[in-house]
Amino acid sequence: LKVGLAGLGTVGAAVARELSVKSELLAERSGRSIEVVAVSARDKNKDRGISLEGIEWFENAVALAESPDVDVVAELIGGSDGIAFDVVKTALERGRHVVTANKALVALHGVEIASIADEKGVALNYEAAVAGGIPVIKALREGLVVNRISRVFGILNGTCNYILTNMEATKRPFTDVLKEAQDLGYAEADPTFDVDGIDAAHKLSILAALAFGARVDFDGVYCEGIRRIAPVDFEYAAQFGYRIKLLAIAENSEDGVIQRVHPCIVPINTPIADVNGVSNAVIAEGDAVGQTVYEGPGAGDGPTASAVIADIVDIARGLIQPAFMRPASRLAPLQRGDLSQRVGAFYLRLGVLDRPGVIAKVTQVLAEQEISIGSFVQRGVTEDGAVNVVIMTHTTTEAAFGRALSAIESLSEVVEKPCKIRVEDF
Amino acid sequence: LKVGLAGLGTVGAAVARELSVKSELLAERSGRSIEVVAVSARDKNKDRGISLEGIEWFENAVALAESPDVDVVAELIGGSDGIAFDVVKTALERGRHVVTANKALVALHGVEIASIADEKGVALNYEAAVAGGIPVIKALREGLVVNRISRVFGILNGTCNYILTNMEATKRPFTDVLKEAQDLGYAEADPTFDVDGIDAAHKLSILAALAFGARVDFDGVYCEGIRRIAPVDFEYAAQFGYRIKLLAIAENSEDGVIQRVHPCIVPINTPIADVNGVSNAVIAEGDAVGQTVYEGPGAGDGPTASAVIADIVDIARGLIQPAFMRPASRLAPLQRGDLSQRVGAFYLRLGVLDRPGVIAKVTQVLAEQEISIGSFVQRGVTEDGAVNVVIMTHTTTEAAFGRALSAIESLSEVVEKPCKIRVEDF
Repeated sequence: LKVGLAGLGTVGAAVARELSVKSELLAERSGRSIEVVAVSARDKNKDRGISLEGIEWFENAVALAESPDVDVVAELIGGSDGIAFDVVKTALERGRHVVTANKALVALHGVEIASIADEKGVALNYEAAVAGGIPVIKALREGLVVNRISRVFGILNGTCNYILTNMEATKRPFTDVLKEAQDLGYAEADPTFDVDGIDAAHKLSILAALAFGARVDFDGVYCEGIRRIAPVDFEYAAQFGYRIKLLAIAENSEDGVIQRVHPCIVPINTPIADVNGVSNAVIAEGDAVGQTVYEGPGAGDGPTASAVIADIVDIARGLIQPAFMRPASRLAPLQRGDLSQRVGAFYLRLGVLDRPGVIAKVTQVLAEQEISIGSFVQRGVTEDGAVNVVIMTHTTTEAAFGRALSAIESLSEVVEKPCKIRVEDF
Repeated sequence: LKVGLAGLGTVGAAVARELSVKSELLAERSGRSIEVVAVSARDKNKDRGISLEGIEWFENAVALAESPDVDVVAELIGGSDGIAFDVVKTALERGRHVVTANKALVALHGVEIASIADEKGVALNYEAAVAGGIPVIKALREGLVVNRISRVFGILNGTCNYILTNMEATKRPFTDVLKEAQDLGYAEADPTFDVDGIDAAHKLSILAALAFGARVDFDGVYCEGIRRIAPVDFEYAAQFGYRIKLLAIAENSEDGVIQRVHPCIVPINTPIADVNGVSNAVIAEGDAVGQTVYEGPGAGDGPTASAVIADIVDIARGLIQPAFMRPASRLAPLQRGDLSQRVGAFYLRLGVLDRPGVIAKVTQVLAEQEISIGSFVQRGVTEDGAVNVVIMTHTTTEAAFGRALSAIESLSEVVEKPCKIRVEDF
């Protein structure tokens, strides 16, 4: 099986290295020899710690995708559009199998490229796009194939999980820990995609498409990042027996599927609360199997290469299946549920002026929306003269809580934007 | 794809039901209609909550395996020999694909039947044989295919995990909790296979064959059950920050692979310590991916049917691969490592007479084997006049500890068989 690698960054180089070092092992295990015959990257002379001898070099990755010598194109460039999209589209149109680690591409153009793959009878595999080295796409497409999935959720962004884990452990603010994550290579120079939840939303939309048998609906994901979380939130959460995680959740509700990415307060004794650092975890709930949990490294060269090569070996073994379990032409649009009808409890931290009557006003607003208060904590005056007030509500609807929050925000005594975190009792 | 079900117990009936109820879903997802055309069981008239209309009935399961109308035989009878073995062998010899949930059969005859499958070019799939509904065979055979596995371990017997979880929670003795597990249907009338670790050893030997690319070596599994664990052991373990689990562990050592099933003391804050009740968990350590964790229901009709049907769908999709990743003829015997060279710490509980000098004797024996003591707890006199002494050693070898234990057991002041538990710091 002849493989062309489009992209030789750290992941591409790791794939090349593993395919070379383990060529004998893979030939034994897959019944077929797998060989890198072509590569494409920007700089031919960069030292990547791998030998490119005997491998055809392409300046232009699209030309690699057009090469008749290649059976499988592994797209490891990244980005939802531009060259990555061109490479994948071209390769599929020429009847080459495609393996990609590109979650943005699959989230935004998954169904379009899956249609081409269907038409040409080739594979479009993307295990590495979600949860790194954990074979969770395989679990959903194959291992749980008979299950109707009611919910799939998890920790899908290692950068955010690293930041939250370290904010909790060291009580330092978001910006400090982000800086550290950037220095360690766990966060990009522009961290927007990670810390604003977009990367997790890309991955969630892919999982949801598989789980609910519909077209990928990235635009339908409600998305909230972790920038507003402060060290004090971990302390309050711990007092109530909770921990803070950025979760990605897709679940069937009465009127359709709700997809959402946002910080959550989860009980300390649940499995998801113990997923720390750059790890990822996915939990799927199926009608036949019940709940299964998949956990491991969500990023990094080795884990990503492991998933990319598993996808290549599936092709070597002759497993060619539709990208989203059924032909793309038969995928219906995802029926969206109404988030405003979601019922749950909320954590709310307010910075208020230390004046008589403030608490009465806040609690009055909540009472007007029929929201009961589970816990209430008020702390001494902070440096800037404000008082931290933390409220844990009983269950209410998103709609009612949203109305209450607007009213609270408009109180003149509320001096900073409130921090709300949903409580999830999985 | 025409399926014959050999065995219509609770699992067989669940497979028939799911295949019938989800026939449309499965046809969409697998691109092929999958139909039960033949069944075999003892009593035709028993009410199983499923319709057998239009399905050929076989009194004799071997005759079902011989039927030319069947493409896939699902063996759901159980037992390592006898009729289950005959059915599988016959089906494979006739060129039918086989799916089985039978861990004893695969553990004892896996390579023999895999050879027949290879020869006939058919599949032998056994996802349900290990860890119930968790797709862990698929993870090892496919998802982690490029990895050299250094260790695979986990909680593979839900009955033992249920018993240990409940002994810890309720402080009741083993026999009481076993009785309860039997009443709830979590343990068999004859619990030997479960509580003595044999079932876990069956499953471990299958995982080890896959992980280390060798023939299944059930006889090479060191196996110790949970009958000697007492409620007091959970209390002592908790004092030291530990919990007790029956683990199955296969790992590469210097001279080969050590396979072992025995109670372990594990730190409370590790993921494996939080796997409770009838759940199973498998952790695999690969050189490319690092550590991945798989957790979920290890038994039950629904989870088992989920795995059996996933195996059938793989066949429907055309994925036919050797049972143990490479052809059976090319599987070498598992090179066994030497357990006596294993290095680790031990928990040891002794019942000793309340006499001067006993502790001096015990500690002298340990010192002679150069075993240092990490913690030492002695409790007041028990009802029968003995004193409970609990020792946590520092790391030592199995061999040295074994010699010390023999010497301690032969002391006249040691009045009951000591309880030793290995400490594992994963």
